[in-house]
Amino acid sequence: MKFDTVAILGVGLLGGSVGAALRDRKLAKRIIGIGRNEETLATAKSLGLVTETTTDIAEGVRTANLVVVATPVDKVVEHVQQVRQHCSAATLITDCGSTKRDIVRLCTGKAQQESAIFVGSHPLAGGEKSGPTAARADLFDGRKVVVTPGKDQTNEDSAVQTIAEFWAALGATTYFMTPAEHDRALAMTSHLPHVVAAALAKVTPVADLPLTATGWRGTTRVAAGDVELWTQIVLSNHDNLLKSLNKYQQSLSQFIDAVERQDARQIRSWFTQAKERRDAVES
Amino acid sequence: MKFDTVAILGVGLLGGSVGAALRDRKLAKRIIGIGRNEETLATAKSLGLVTETTTDIAEGVRTANLVVVATPVDKVVEHVQQVRQHCSAATLITDCGSTKRDIVRLCTGKAQQESAIFVGSHPLAGGEKSGPTAARADLFDGRKVVVTPGKDQTNEDSAVQTIAEFWAALGATTYFMTPAEHDRALAMTSHLPHVVAAALAKVTPVADLPLTATGWRGTTRVAAGDVELWTQIVLSNHDNLLKSLNKYQQSLSQFIDAVERQDARQIRSWFTQAKERRDAVES
Repeated sequence: MKFDTVAILGVGLLGGSVGAALRDRKLAKRIIGIGRNEETLATAKSLGLVTETTTDIAEGVRTANLVVVATPVDKVVEHVQQVRQHCSAATLITDCGSTKRDIVRLCTGKAQQESAIFVGSHPLAGGEKSGPTAARADLFDGRKVVVTPGKDQTNEDSAVQTIAEFWAALGATTYFMTPAEHDRALAMTSHLPHVVAAALAKVTPVADLPLTATGWRGTTRVAAGDVELWTQIVLSNHDNLLKSLNKYQQSLSQFIDAVERQDARQIRSWFTQAKERRDAVES
Repeated sequence: MKFDTVAILGVGLLGGSVGAALRDRKLAKRIIGIGRNEETLATAKSLGLVTETTTDIAEGVRTANLVVVATPVDKVVEHVQQVRQHCSAATLITDCGSTKRDIVRLCTGKAQQESAIFVGSHPLAGGEKSGPTAARADLFDGRKVVVTPGKDQTNEDSAVQTIAEFWAALGATTYFMTPAEHDRALAMTSHLPHVVAAALAKVTPVADLPLTATGWRGTTRVAAGDVELWTQIVLSNHDNLLKSLNKYQQSLSQFIDAVERQDARQIRSWFTQAKERRDAVES
C-alpha cells in the first residue's frame, strides 16, 4: 500500500479512473470519492471506483494522505482552497487540470507555506466520453502525465517526487515542466488539435455527412468532447492558443497559395513535411 | 460466381483488396493481377489476392469480363485507354480514383461508344498504409462506394447497375452521384480533412512531439498518407478544395475573433455547433 487514504474530488472520467487504478493496483486502503451529486457518487461506488463517498469536502479530506482534485479546470483553484481548509498540513494535493499557469500560481507559493502542499499535474488522458461510467482502471497505463512544480518548488522536492511517483504507480510516464512550458506545448499538441478538428466538423454540411469515411471521422473525433471543458481550457490558455492558431493559419495559407498556382512541387513538399512529422510519432 | 474473369490493374491496397474480397466471397473464377513491378505482383499472388499475374496489359485484360483500374488517380485515364485497346467491347471497366470529373469526362461519352463501357467508381476505403501487404478481404465491408455515371449514362443503365452490384457484392453500400457532385462533396469530407490534418502535423515543433496524445494522433493520422497520391488528388480537385478551405479558414477566423475577445459565449456556441455536427456521425 502506497497510501492509506486517498480522497478524490470529482469522480468523472479522470477522478473515477484514478480511483479504479488505485484499487486495481492495490495502492490505497481507502479511496474517498467526493462530489456534489449523490447519484454520480453512488454510480462511482457501485462501479468500484471508490470505497466510500461523501458530499462533504471537509469530511472527505480530513484523514486523506493525498487529495486528487479532478474537477473542471476553472474550478480547481477554488477546490484546492476548500481542501486546504480541512485537510492536515501533511496532506499532499494534486489536480488534473489541462492548463497549469493560473492553477499553479494561485495554489503554490509563499502564501501557502503553512498549509498542505499542492503540486500541479496534468494527465494526458481523456477522451470524448465523460462521467464515472467512462472511467477505466487502465486509463493512465502507458499515458503521459506532466507534473508542473511552482516557482518555489523544484523537481527534487519530496512532494513533487511523490506526486510523480503516484502517477508512475498508475502506469503513466511522467514529465516535469514549468507551468509556462506546459501551457505553451499543450496549446500546440492538445488545444490546437481540438480547434482544428472542431472547425472541420463545423464547416461540413449536414448533407455531406453520409459521405464521411475514416479520414473525416478520425480527424474530427475530438470535436465530440465536452464543450464547457474546452471553453474553459481555451479561455485559460488563450494567449498560447492564439499563437498556435496563427502558425496554423500561416501554414494553411502557404498551402492555399500553392494550390492556387497549381504548383505540384510546392504541394508535394508541403505534404512531405507534414508526413515526416506525423511519421515521427507512433500511430 | 458473379464473374468468370476479373482483371485488376494495380494490386496495391485497393486493387489487392478487390482481389482478396472477390476470392473470399467466391465471386470470380480467375482474378488477374496486372502491374509493372514483378515483385509486387508476386507478393500479391503469394498473399492470395489474385489467381494469376502479368505485366502485360493486353494479355491481362483480353478475356476479362470486368477490369478494375486501381492505379493512382492521375494514371487512370491513360490506363483505361490502354485497357480498351485490348479488351472485348463486352468488358466492363471501372476505377477507384478519388476524384471523378476528369476521369469520367475523358473515359465516357460519345467518342467511346464503340468500345468497352467505363463506369467511374470511388470506394471510400483507404488508409495510411499502401501496397499489396496492406490489402484485406474485408476492406470494403461496411464501407461506402460512390458510383459516378457520366453525362450519357443514367443510374439505371445496366452497366452502371452492374458496377454498383459489384461493389455491393464486396460488402459496400453504394451511392450514385454525378462526378461534379462527388468532387464537391469529397473536397469537404475527404480532401479538406487531409489538408487540415497535414497542416497540424506540419506546424507541431519536433520538440513538442513527446507531448502528443490521442487527440493530436487521431487528428493528424491521415497526414501519414501517400504524398504523391494526395498531391494528385489536390491538383485534380483544386477548385472545390479551395472553396472548402475558404469556408474552413472563415470558421477558424470566427473562432480566433472570439478567443481574442475572450468571449466565452461565442466560444461555447462555436464548439457546440462543432460537437453537434460530429455527434451526428458514428464514431
